[in-house]
Amino acid sequence: MTEHTSHEIDVEKLETSKINAVNFDNLTFGRTFTDHMFICDFENDEWQTPRIIPYQAMTMEPSARVFHYGQAVFEGMKAYKDKDGKVWLFRPEDNYNRINKSAARLAMPEFPKDYFFKGLTKLLQIDSAWVKPGKGNSLYIRPFIIATDPAISASPSSNYRFMIICSPAKAYYTDKIKVLVAEKYSRSASGGVGFAKAAGNYAAQFYPTSLAQKRGFQQVIWTDAATHERLEEAGTMNVFFRINDTLITAPISDRILDGVTRRSIIQLAEDNGITVDVRPITVVELKEASRNGSLKEIFGAGTAAVISPISAFEHGEELFELPNIENSYADSLKDNMLNIQHNLTEDKHGWRYGI
Amino acid sequence: MTEHTSHEIDVEKLETSKINAVNFDNLTFGRTFTDHMFICDFENDEWQTPRIIPYQAMTMEPSARVFHYGQAVFEGMKAYKDKDGKVWLFRPEDNYNRINKSAARLAMPEFPKDYFFKGLTKLLQIDSAWVKPGKGNSLYIRPFIIATDPAISASPSSNYRFMIICSPAKAYYTDKIKVLVAEKYSRSASGGVGFAKAAGNYAAQFYPTSLAQKRGFQQVIWTDAATHERLEEAGTMNVFFRINDTLITAPISDRILDGVTRRSIIQLAEDNGITVDVRPITVVELKEASRNGSLKEIFGAGTAAVISPISAFEHGEELFELPNIENSYADSLKDNMLNIQHNLTEDKHGWRYGI
Repeated sequence: MTEHTSHEIDVEKLETSKINAVNFDNLTFGRTFTDHMFICDFENDEWQTPRIIPYQAMTMEPSARVFHYGQAVFEGMKAYKDKDGKVWLFRPEDNYNRINKSAARLAMPEFPKDYFFKGLTKLLQIDSAWVKPGKGNSLYIRPFIIATDPAISASPSSNYRFMIICSPAKAYYTDKIKVLVAEKYSRSASGGVGFAKAAGNYAAQFYPTSLAQKRGFQQVIWTDAATHERLEEAGTMNVFFRINDTLITAPISDRILDGVTRRSIIQLAEDNGITVDVRPITVVELKEASRNGSLKEIFGAGTAAVISPISAFEHGEELFELPNIENSYADSLKDNMLNIQHNLTEDKHGWRYGI
Repeated sequence: MTEHTSHEIDVEKLETSKINAVNFDNLTFGRTFTDHMFICDFENDEWQTPRIIPYQAMTMEPSARVFHYGQAVFEGMKAYKDKDGKVWLFRPEDNYNRINKSAARLAMPEFPKDYFFKGLTKLLQIDSAWVKPGKGNSLYIRPFIIATDPAISASPSSNYRFMIICSPAKAYYTDKIKVLVAEKYSRSASGGVGFAKAAGNYAAQFYPTSLAQKRGFQQVIWTDAATHERLEEAGTMNVFFRINDTLITAPISDRILDGVTRRSIIQLAEDNGITVDVRPITVVELKEASRNGSLKEIFGAGTAAVISPISAFEHGEELFELPNIENSYADSLKDNMLNIQHNLTEDKHGWRYGI
C-alpha cells in the first residue's frame, strides 16, 4: 500500500512486522534491521521524492562508483525510548550538519534538512516498536549516502542515494577495553578526510586494528601520521585522558572526527565542575603520567560505544595499566549522558529531540 | 544456457550481443560495458565457484559493508588486439599481485591466482569482439573486490565479491593537461593506504581535484602530507619529471602507488639510454628547474592514461609553463609502450600475455 503523507514522503508499509522473530536479549551489533528504510535518490541535479519502504535488498550496477572509488559518507545516531513510550533522538542536528560536511569533502551534494528530519521522524514513528525502553537499549540509526552513477571514470558521481537504516542495539563494548597506541600505521593525513565520516577511513583501519586484536587489544589509538607523537582518536571513538582531576582531549582538526559524544562529554564535564583541557597530548606525556601515578583514566567516547573505559594501553612494547578508581569520570559522565538520552533527567542544553 | 568449462568456471552466455548498439567512435570512458562479467563470491571462508554471466545489475543489502566502510579494492588493466586479431594483456601478473597487496592492507582475503587468470582469459575470449584493433583502442578491464557482509559494525567483512567488468576505451586524456601542485590538501598519510588501490583513496581526491578543475587544471600533483614539499603522484597517474636529459620520479612508498606503467616507463627509458633517477624531488627543485630552463617535460603515467604530457603546473599562485620540445621523452616512451602493448614490436621483457 502506498500513501502520501503531508511531508511528501511516499510510504509503503510492510504487511506484517518481522519484530516477533527478533530476540532483543541477544542482538549482535548492526546485524538486525527494522521493518522499514528511508530512501532518497539524487538524479538530474536534485533530490527526488523521498520514500519509506520495507527494508530490503536493492539493485546496484556493478559499475556504481561507490564500489570503485569509495564515494560514500555516513552518520551514526541513536533513538531512545522513555518509560512513557516516547522516542527521543540526541542532538540530531549535529549529525545532520556533519553528514553534509562529510559529503562536501567527498564532492557529494548536501542533503536537504527538511527531508532529513521529516524522513527520520516518519521512519521512527513507523518503526517505533523497535526502540526498546530501558538504559542500555537503543535503536542505532545509520544515515548514509552512496554514489550510484554507473561509470568507472575516477570523478564524482552524478547520481547518489541517501538512505536511513535502523538496527536495535545493546551496549557496543561491554567490558573495559585494552588499546594499542599506533606507532607505524596511521588513520589520516593533514589535508585529508579524517574529519569526515568517509567510508574509506574505516576500511583503512581494519588491518592495523586486526593486528592489534590478535595481540589482545580491542582498539587502536591513532597518533598523528607525521610524527606518531600526538594522540588523536580511536577510529570509532574520540579519546579522553584524565590526569589528576583534569580531563584532556585532543582538539579537533582535519584529521580528527568532531564527535557529538565528544562535544557532549566536554559540556557535561564542565557542567559538573570538571576541568577540561582541549589541547594536544603526546604519548610521552601520557606514559610519564602513567608512571608517576597522575594518569587516572582513559576512555573512548562515540555514539555506538557512548563511553568505553580503557583498562590499559601499550606503546613501545610496554604495557601501561590504568588504576581501578572509585568515582570515575567515565562512569559518572556515562550515567549523565544516558539519563539525558533516556529522558530521566533535565535536559538543560536542549539536546533531546522528541519524535 | 549454462556450460561447465574445463576451468571449472560456470558460464552463462548472453543470447544476443549488445555490441551492434555501441558506437566505438564515440565512447565516454567507463560508461559502456561488454556483454559479460566475471563474479566470484567469498563465503564460509572460501572463494566459491567462479561464474561468467551476462553483464547486469546485482542485488545488494543496504547494510553491505562496502557502502559504510569503503572496504573495496580494484585494479585497472587493458587488453589490446593486434592486426591478426589476437588479444593481449600487458603485465597482468603485476595487477594480480597488486590487487592482493591492496586486499591485504584492507583486511580482505587474497584472490586465487588460478581463478584470476582463468577467469580473465575466459571472459576476454567470450567478449573478444569488444577489443578493437589499432593504437588508441583498448578494452579497459576492471577487477575489483567489495565487502558484501550485511552488517554495519565497523570491522572486516566475512563475505566478499570479486568481479571483473570490461569497458571499451579510447585515450583517457586527449590533450596536454595542466596540473596544480597540492599545497593544502593531501592524498595519503605515511602508515596509511596510499600505496593500495583502495576505493577510499579516490573519493578523497574528488573535492580538491574539483577545486583545481574549476580553476582550469585537469589534475592535482599530490605532495607529502607532512610538509607539502615533496612531489608524489597525481592520483590516477605516477609522475615523471625530465630535468635536462634525466628522468626523475619519486620512489614508491606506503603513500605512493607502485604503478605498472611507472615501472614499465623506467625500464623502457633505461632500454633507450635515458638516465632515470628514482629519488625524492621537491617543489623547490622543480620550480628552480623551470626558472632556469632545465625542466624540459613533465608527464603522468598510468594504465588509463598511458602517458599524459603536462603543459603547465601551478604552485604558490604562480604558473610554470613547460616548453614545447622536439623529441620528447613522453612521445617516444608512449609510442614504445603502445607498440609493445599492441604487438607491433619485440617484447624483450616478456610483458605481453596472450589470450
